[in-house]
Amino acid sequence: MAQRRSGLWHSNEVRYNRSPMSTPPLSARKLIHSILLSKGRMEALTDGIFAIAMTLLVLELKVPDLPKRVGATELLQKIGEEAPAFFSFMMSFLYCGLLWVMHHLAMHFVRHLQIALVWLNLLFLMSISLMPFSCGLLGHFLRNRAAQEIYFSNMFVAAALVAAQWLVAKKKKLINEDDLLASQLMGQQVIFLPVALGAGLVAASFNPLMGSYGFIVVLLALRLWQRRWHRNRIANPASPSS
Amino acid sequence: MAQRRSGLWHSNEVRYNRSPMSTPPLSARKLIHSILLSKGRMEALTDGIFAIAMTLLVLELKVPDLPKRVGATELLQKIGEEAPAFFSFMMSFLYCGLLWVMHHLAMHFVRHLQIALVWLNLLFLMSISLMPFSCGLLGHFLRNRAAQEIYFSNMFVAAALVAAQWLVAKKKKLINEDDLLASQLMGQQVIFLPVALGAGLVAASFNPLMGSYGFIVVLLALRLWQRRWHRNRIANPASPSS
Amino acid sequence: MAQRRSGLWHSNEVRYNRSPMSTPPLSARKLIHSILLSKGRMEALTDGIFAIAMTLLVLELKVPDLPKRVGATELLQKIGEEAPAFFSFMMSFLYCGLLWVMHHLAMHFVRHLQIALVWLNLLFLMSISLMPFSCGLLGHFLRNRAAQEIYFSNMFVAAALVAAQWLVAKKKKLINEDDLLASQLMGQQVIFLPVALGAGLVAASFNPLMGSYGFIVVLLALRLWQRRWHRNRIANPASPSS
Amino acid sequence: MAQRRSGLWHSNEVRYNRSPMSTPPLSARKLIHSILLSKGRMEALTDGIFAIAMTLLVLELKVPDLPKRVGATELLQKIGEEAPAFFSFMMSFLYCGLLWVMHHLAMHFVRHLQIALVWLNLLFLMSISLMPFSCGLLGHFLRNRAAQEIYFSNMFVAAALVAAQWLVAKKKKLINEDDLLASQLMGQQVIFLPVALGAGLVAASFNPLMGSYGFIVVLLALRLWQRRWHRNRIANPASPSS
Repeated sequence: MAQRRSGLWHSNEVRYNRSPMSTPPLSARKLIHSILLSKGRMEALTDGIFAIAMTLLVLELKVPDLPKRVGATELLQKIGEEAPAFFSFMMSFLYCGLLWVMHHLAMHFVRHLQIALVWLNLLFLMSISLMPFSCGLLGHFLRNRAAQEIYFSNMFVAAALVAAQWLVAKKKKLINEDDLLASQLMGQQVIFLPVALGAGLVAASFNPLMGSYGFIVVLLALRLWQRRWHRNRIANPASPSS
Repeated sequence: MAQRRSGLWHSNEVRYNRSPMSTPPLSARKLIHSILLSKGRMEALTDGIFAIAMTLLVLELKVPDLPKRVGATELLQKIGEEAPAFFSFMMSFLYCGLLWVMHHLAMHFVRHLQIALVWLNLLFLMSISLMPFSCGLLGHFLRNRAAQEIYFSNMFVAAALVAAQWLVAKKKKLINEDDLLASQLMGQQVIFLPVALGAGLVAASFNPLMGSYGFIVVLLALRLWQRRWHRNRIANPASPSS
Repeated sequence: MAQRRSGLWHSNEVRYNRSPMSTPPLSARKLIHSILLSKGRMEALTDGIFAIAMTLLVLELKVPDLPKRVGATELLQKIGEEAPAFFSFMMSFLYCGLLWVMHHLAMHFVRHLQIALVWLNLLFLMSISLMPFSCGLLGHFLRNRAAQEIYFSNMFVAAALVAAQWLVAKKKKLINEDDLLASQLMGQQVIFLPVALGAGLVAASFNPLMGSYGFIVVLLALRLWQRRWHRNRIANPASPSS
Repeated sequence: MAQRRSGLWHSNEVRYNRSPMSTPPLSARKLIHSILLSKGRMEALTDGIFAIAMTLLVLELKVPDLPKRVGATELLQKIGEEAPAFFSFMMSFLYCGLLWVMHHLAMHFVRHLQIALVWLNLLFLMSISLMPFSCGLLGHFLRNRAAQEIYFSNMFVAAALVAAQWLVAKKKKLINEDDLLASQLMGQQVIFLPVALGAGLVAASFNPLMGSYGFIVVLLALRLWQRRWHRNRIANPASPSS
């Protein structure tokens, strides 16, 4: 049977994910799922959805509904009133950019995809494509606690789904650990963001201001821990601590 | 004449689809159509339209039209009233994701494109780009039978056009059958979805609730049949069934 | 100087377009413009703009503004009233698909880009990105002569800009004519469409109905001429008639 | 340690940016940032955001809100009143096209990316994705000074961010200077545009009309200087003047 499949086996797009020892025949469902999806097309869909979600954010910035011959001062003032929308647009654009960079960096370490990773990535993309809604909500109701909670929950879910992809890829041994140190640091980065955002969300449920503090304190603490861990790691490269 | 063409013949993008034995000269129209379109660019257009359609779904989630200083409870309640729109957004996003994965998997088995496949794929993309409309309709009129029928018909047409592409590619011998078992299972998967959706649509024309039952029952039955077929196929790999 | 440039010269992305005999030094402007733009990225932008314009067409299909608990019949009737918008959506989607296929086929024959082709392509993309507006206009005012003229002029301009790209590429010797017959037929195809559309527009300026007749008659006549030309060409392959 | 990393080192996507002499161990943060982002995916995101922003410009062209059976003359007149919006659409589309071409040409000279360039590029993309808003503003308030200032500031910021990317890449020695003359001319082109736009903005703060003059005069002066510089450079190729 192995020979019959050789034609596909050697193509550089379709690869099979069966360990050479798997003697029991796979179920029909698993056989299809064992076809690995092309990393390139998943990245194309990801880049496309990021590009669109990041550009749709601008649709929340409405051209003021004023008569055409309005004065410059009045127009500027009206646009100034929309400052929260601009603030929300910029924060959302840069946060999406950050997630894109993180996802991009993390994907460097993933050797190939599996169906579970594809679905996690689709959920991740769903949370990204929700950002224009959350961003518009925050831009319109900047000081409203419900809007803030929805916005930051959306941020948290997106970051958590990047971390989940990493953890699943790690469990399924899809992470390239040739440079063990770099892959470990990458994994830490990927997990720090949702942990800090989650801490901020919990803190904010007591007091909105505490939210930002919680986020910053936890992120700094994690970074300090990472620096110490890294220094120890360099000093004792042999220890297989993870 | 064969030599004159050698420059193009060896390029890795433009390939001709004429069997070496075709001695009668092709008509002008067929000669142009025999130039095979690049699979890569068709995939780029496909990924682009999927990315955009999946992200445009969010435009149906409108920021509530409330005064800026509204209370958190009132805002949450207003957003809660839009629950059908969120439900429709999520279902549509995941269904489009499913079709994208199926189309992606199926394309692994297609060796190259022909003009007929390109047009079938454009019709498929048209049905995908209609999804934001159908999704918005369902989100707004969740319990309306006309909205449900339009939405599920759209789903059905999209799935049927994936199946049609598979069948046409198979008839034109464009399917890579080096791994015969995998390509047969893939073909079954591709055909099961529209069959089950069609069954659901027919059942729903009698009674809306029967629609979901019809869909699930048919899909389960097809899966059970596939499992048995697969077990037989493994036991007697020589039989050229299907 | 030639040696100094060798590093770039051999890269497969940046190529210079200077004939080896060009001894007089190029002007600063021409030197920059002689850097050839990557065909791949131009295709990526083209595929992106096509994907978006084709998907934005759907935004003209509005979810009917009816109360949530409206009956199925009333909803269907309201959607039925929007039939012109659906007709316009489908025609525009398929026409854009046709132009995409033609542009795609024509690009197979273009060896590399030059700045003039890039700007012509940007103008072409501008006409494509106008399609959602023209399509919306026609969908809303299907029987209005002004809407029809704007819509078909947009179609004509887009098709004419594909033809213009072909003619410029041909004049600048960028067309791969290894398969002379195929490239000649491609060139004819590319020019037939705007000629027939132009004829239709002229005819329609006398009488709307004559527009469609003019288009069809001219396209059929051109096809018949092409068939005869092709038959002669096959019979006398030596004659260098173009 | 160098050997352990060899697996990644030779991959053609992930490259490390450490000079071979850097003996002191990098900090955790720098180690992650030293992973170079793939130029291909940054280009995909860039092409995507350009394609979307350029196509969203069309959303500012609204189908006139007239009864369906309106006369052709009245419809044309109403569309004619929107001439400023069409003018703004075309100018913005072509300006975005120009920036895309410049960014594209400049990227040919960039050997690889670093995290600083990625963030500068994200800021650049943010300014591009703001264009549909600025374009809509100018289209609606063409003669309003505030709208003009916002529009041209947006243009200026986008052009300045291309120049900033070039300067940062140059400082970090990421520019391929194998063809020194071409890379120097490219650098000049990239810097001329924001300088001329900035001059126009300053001049316009005194008098709107002076703005256009300022822009044109400065651009011409820079071009003349470039032509003389280029002629000197050809005459004395040895002089390492920059």
